Amino acid sequence: MRDVAVIGIGTSRFGKFPDRSFHTLGGEAVRKALADAGVAPGRIEVAYGSRIFLDQITAQVVLRDIGIAGIEMINVENACAGGATAVRCLWKDIATGMYDIGLAFGVESMTTSPIAGKLIAQGDDDIDAKLGSNMPVVFALMARRLMETHGATAADFAQVSVKSHQAAALNPAAQYRKVLSIDEVLGSRMVADPITLLQCCPNTDGAAAVVMCTTDMAKSLGARPVRILASVLQSSDYFFKKRDLTSFDAGRNAAAKAYEMASVGPDDLDVVELHDAFAPEELVHYEDLGLCGPGESVGLLRSGATALGGRVPVNPSGGLLSLGHPLSASGVRTICDVVQQLRGEAGPRQAEGARIGLAQMLGGNVNGLEMGAAAVHILARD
Amino acid sequence: MRDVAVIGIGTSRFGKFPDRSFHTLGGEAVRKALADAGVAPGRIEVAYGSRIFLDQITAQVVLRDIGIAGIEMINVENACAGGATAVRCLWKDIATGMYDIGLAFGVESMTTSPIAGKLIAQGDDDIDAKLGSNMPVVFALMARRLMETHGATAADFAQVSVKSHQAAALNPAAQYRKVLSIDEVLGSRMVADPITLLQCCPNTDGAAAVVMCTTDMAKSLGARPVRILASVLQSSDYFFKKRDLTSFDAGRNAAAKAYEMASVGPDDLDVVELHDAFAPEELVHYEDLGLCGPGESVGLLRSGATALGGRVPVNPSGGLLSLGHPLSASGVRTICDVVQQLRGEAGPRQAEGARIGLAQMLGGNVNGLEMGAAAVHILARD
Repeated sequence: MRDVAVIGIGTSRFGKFPDRSFHTLGGEAVRKALADAGVAPGRIEVAYGSRIFLDQITAQVVLRDIGIAGIEMINVENACAGGATAVRCLWKDIATGMYDIGLAFGVESMTTSPIAGKLIAQGDDDIDAKLGSNMPVVFALMARRLMETHGATAADFAQVSVKSHQAAALNPAAQYRKVLSIDEVLGSRMVADPITLLQCCPNTDGAAAVVMCTTDMAKSLGARPVRILASVLQSSDYFFKKRDLTSFDAGRNAAAKAYEMASVGPDDLDVVELHDAFAPEELVHYEDLGLCGPGESVGLLRSGATALGGRVPVNPSGGLLSLGHPLSASGVRTICDVVQQLRGEAGPRQAEGARIGLAQMLGGNVNGLEMGAAAVHILARD
Repeated sequence: MRDVAVIGIGTSRFGKFPDRSFHTLGGEAVRKALADAGVAPGRIEVAYGSRIFLDQITAQVVLRDIGIAGIEMINVENACAGGATAVRCLWKDIATGMYDIGLAFGVESMTTSPIAGKLIAQGDDDIDAKLGSNMPVVFALMARRLMETHGATAADFAQVSVKSHQAAALNPAAQYRKVLSIDEVLGSRMVADPITLLQCCPNTDGAAAVVMCTTDMAKSLGARPVRILASVLQSSDYFFKKRDLTSFDAGRNAAAKAYEMASVGPDDLDVVELHDAFAPEELVHYEDLGLCGPGESVGLLRSGATALGGRVPVNPSGGLLSLGHPLSASGVRTICDVVQQLRGEAGPRQAEGARIGLAQMLGGNVNGLEMGAAAVHILARD
């Protein structure tokens, strides 16, 4: 395997843009990533695009407008982990020597999709979803269990959202930039008890892109490489095998594999971006990623260690909750934000001296499975 | 690179099955492929699924019902070349040593999709499509040009459909098993002059799957390997670069790369399965694949060389026109049919002594590009 680095990152503004199609959102992110890498479109050897909602062949359509055509292009989909899947596929191509340089992007125009809301509300078309086991409900059950086993309170969950909004308020790309109080979060409309509206990620339009190449090529290009120490993707196992309602086995296993591959441990992490589609979920990931021991997630949150300025800031971007969640874009966007931190370019949201970061993404709600997919990437600056 | 082989193939029946979801269609194909390979579900290390029309995470949903979960799963989409893309991705994983054994499948339930017809009619959402440049029109322009430059007649185009239906009549899996006359094809409703209804592939529900592994593992499993000599995928270049209206540069280039990779030439082919979404198109592919010289495609068709019993039967399965075209399934199905031929198991449709075969798939209609994607696989029995 060859060493692979991210040399360019780009994201669109996140928000609701009914007058922008996925073409221009995706194009904006890709153009920025190419410019950031200092790489001409003609240098790209392979490209992966990710998008859930209609239409066909997203990569070809978006990249056509950039001047990229005629190379190998593959569109991937893995629910919310689609963008991370695109990065994983590109990593494989470069690490194994199939190609030396390529790009991966994710984009979603949920505002203009005729089916986005319906699909998210329904999840999979199996019986559980029809009976009401949609996304907020799945996470509400998990939250209820956290209250039983971990002593978590409704205010703790609200604090995740407050922390997220504090970060997003400092992020010009974010969909929601308003600082919230715990009372405001708790007082918002109840969606699935104990999850209130302001503990749910919004529908978001947006895109994110990365340019990646071998570390050798990065040197010859004079780029600023951030190395990918680990790239792991796996689907979830059966729900009946689930060990614990307050853990995602797929996320836990993917993290364990990534730590082994990267030869680092959770204590080495300086910054984390993760899948916080619903506020209570963040506590689960603290333990699954090993940021704290079993049962310690509530204490970790309350200590402030995962807030801006803490020992290991989690979602200093604002996360899915406040930066926004354009589904297939999020798995690329988390990597962009970790790279920005490792370059020391995150401005008021900077994790001081960050050297190693982790980007995690989960996706999907499938009847009978724990969920759909889990992806973990670990990155490091030299 | 390691040698990769197909050791299991499986297809569902093709047709209109409003009472069957993509779950059961995909499951049928995957179960058959695993049984054909003699491989237990638990042996599969990585899986690729392909499907265009809703919903999320096709691979996870289909494979859940087979007993496959918790491995790396990726859903890919590349218009009609989606299935071929899944095979290409799996080939890369095995050839580069990422995994030793995996499966790829494609499935489409177009009957139950709320958007299949609309999407096909519109193509990309750009201006050309809105002005009427949909799929039949694109191929009708090509057909008109073939009449100008190649001396092709309406009857020649109809003959492609007649040939296709003759083969499909012998194929128990086919959607349409009726032998047609040239007059019947020409007399059917005009869709886009000169293309009549019976020169258009139908909307089809169906699925196809392959199990692939290293040739070394194939030996240890006691399987009947058909080796993949070449796997090529590329997107199309800009329309303004197009050399000739009677050629698809992407298809031509992909074939040239595949021949080089496989160290074989078109004269070595014993059987071909290709993208015949519209009858006139088959003549274009004859030249792009090098089955004949420039301007000789009409003569090749008239000679009977590409019919059952001819020198190099093209689409002895019945092809997209008559076997049917469940979009993302077709790129896997063509490979299944070539494997069946190379095993000598195609019954009354068998190409005598077939040793080397080619499966080609094109996909997509993107404004400004020649099309979306082109894939070519070359396979051989030992």
